[in-house]
This record gives sequence, structure tokens and C-alpha cells, in this order.
Amino acid sequence: MSMHQAARAAQPELNGLDVEAATATIAALKADPALAQFRFRASNSWISGGENRSTIQGFYGAGREDDSRSEAWDFTNGEPPVLLGRNEGANPVEFLLHALAGCVTTTLVLHATARGVRIRSLSTELEGDIDLRGLLALDDETTPGYQEIRIALSVEADCSDEELEALIAEAQRRSPVCNTICRPTPVTITRKAA
Amino acid sequence: MSMHQAARAAQPELNGLDVEAATATIAALKADPALAQFRFRASNSWISGGENRSTIQGFYGAGREDDSRSEAWDFTNGEPPVLLGRNEGANPVEFLLHALAGCVTTTLVLHATARGVRIRSLSTELEGDIDLRGLLALDDETTPGYQEIRIALSVEADCSDEELEALIAEAQRRSPVCNTICRPTPVTITRKAA
Repeated sequence: MSMHQAARAAQPELNGLDVEAATATIAALKADPALAQFRFRASNSWISGGENRSTIQGFYGAGREDDSRSEAWDFTNGEPPVLLGRNEGANPVEFLLHALAGCVTTTLVLHATARGVRIRSLSTELEGDIDLRGLLALDDETTPGYQEIRIALSVEADCSDEELEALIAEAQRRSPVCNTICRPTPVTITRKAA
Repeated sequence: MSMHQAARAAQPELNGLDVEAATATIAALKADPALAQFRFRASNSWISGGENRSTIQGFYGAGREDDSRSEAWDFTNGEPPVLLGRNEGANPVEFLLHALAGCVTTTLVLHATARGVRIRSLSTELEGDIDLRGLLALDDETTPGYQEIRIALSVEADCSDEELEALIAEAQRRSPVCNTICRPTPVTITRKAA
């Protein structure tokens, strides 16, 4: 029995995750890669100006359509007055930072748990720079997207500093949202009958 | 007076946007590119397992720190049971789809307004594929991020079909979130004292 296995045996729940379920999930996906194929979805409707709303509920994964969510979530995008809105909600580029923060955090916690490391606290502060001349087509040299996103991460955990650095690197390397952003990910738009 | 200018003169508000304010904003950013530099932010704290929460409020843009939001927004990331959570919230890769949907929508509405085109309705359905073997480090050939994101877009507008196709292409080319995703965007993580 390795140290990690021993840690698991001693702590059926670690970092709020069910260690046995996590181990079983990983073994199942390893045995049958088809179970690892997930498809996530969102539907969005424009309201007015910079205001629009998304509905999120179902997804496909682990070989079937998920039915665990009895109700949908609604999220409203808006814009601040300086961007011609009335702060109807956070704006899309801010929601992107929320998604990135959450994904790096969850990925770190997941890999810490797999290594038997207890996380005591974990928080992040994100900032990203955008030159609006890209969005507004005022300058073709300017990318419309974030030029760079910086994450300042604070973490306390029951492991050596070296292990913690390795965990942070693994979180960055394995986070789905972080990789969707730092690698070129194809986005296709097709028109549907209205 | 061009047709677009005439449309603006006849409709001070178009698509829920103040056309005069939009024109003034674009002129100001064109005259002083420093005003086009924006910095958006989010702070996130881990709660337990796959649950964490972001706070979004301030940002820098148009030459100063914005103070239009008297209260912050909180958004909770969670995970479904099949991903070891209790549906505490939508998950980070779903929030990314919400951000992308909203950004493509707002970018399309903005450029339609600049061209004097009235949008009657606009909605999108997004789906994206993820192979979880990337996240779980079960396969080094598998990207942890979305392999592809597809947007099905329905739009009705007071313009020709050709103009509408050009608007959709412009929305994809100019959307900040779409470009953050489809181009490689650097993400850096630095450790801060906890």
C-alpha cells in the first residue's frame, strides 16, 4: 500500500471529495474511454442592447444524458454604462474570468485529492487586459480578445512547498478552461432558421 | 449624410443601445487609444470539493477605475454528481459557454447598431466536447480543454441576408471571448502568500 493509498484509506472524504467515488470514476474512465466523452451546452437569448441571458441544465457524459438537475440555471450578461449598458449583470469577459478561476481551482483540488494532499485554503485573483480597439474594429493589429490573463493564487496545504508547486503546475496543465483559453480552440458558428 | 447616419438620426436608440453615446464612445477611443485599454477582474475562493465562488465588481477602463457598480456579483461554480459534486452551481466549462454566447451576441448587436441595422430577435445554442482523460491525466495525447465549440445562431434583422451573413462573420471576428478562445491566449499563474 503506497502512502497515497494509505491516506485515502484513512480519509474517505478529502477536500470535500468522496475519495472512493473519485478513484472509482478514474478507474472506470481508464477502462472505457467512451465514458470520458462529455458534451456541455448552453442556450442564450438576446434581451436588449448588451443584455442577454443563458440557460444551463443538461449535458451528456459518462455514457448517457445527465438527469441530475431538476431545474435550470439562468445567468444574465450585461454591460456597465461606460460600455453602453446598465449593469444588467457581469459582462461576458468577466464571466470568462469566473469560469477560469473555478476551473483552475477545481482541477487543483482534484489532483491534490488524488495525491492524498489536504488543501486548507485556496483563493485566486484574476485580471486580464483587453484593448477595445479590437472589438470595435478600430485597429486590425489589435486582438479583440484578452491579451493576457494573470492569476495570483494563494494556497495552504498539508504538503511540502515543492509538492505544492507541482500541484499548481498540474492544475494549469490539466484545467479544461485554462487549456481552452491558452490553446487555439476552434469555434464554429452556423446559422439556424429563426 | 450616409444611409447609416440617416438611420441613426431617425432612431436615437437602436437595439436598446443609445446610438449617440455609441458613436461618441467610438470617436473618443479612436482619438485616444489609451481610453480603449480595459482591465477586468475576478476574485475566487474555494469552498469545498468542486464548489467555489467568484466575486466580480470593479474594473479599469476608459482611463479610470469604474465606480458604477455599488454592489458586487457572486457566482458559484459547482459540479454534478457524476463529476463528484452536488450541483452547487453550473460548472466552469458551462460558464465558459455562457460567456461565449453572451459575447458573440453583444458583439453582433453592437456592430448591427453601428451599421444602422435593427435586430428583431437573436438566440444561440452552444455545445462543446471535452474528453475528461485530459483533465484526469489519463492520456497525454488528449487536450484537457474543449476540442471544439459549436454555436447555432438564429437571428432576424431588418437587412438583407447577405448583410446578415457579414454581421455574423464580424461578430465572430470581433468578439473578445470568441477570440480569447480561438486564439492562444497566455494565462500565467503566480503564487501569492496565503
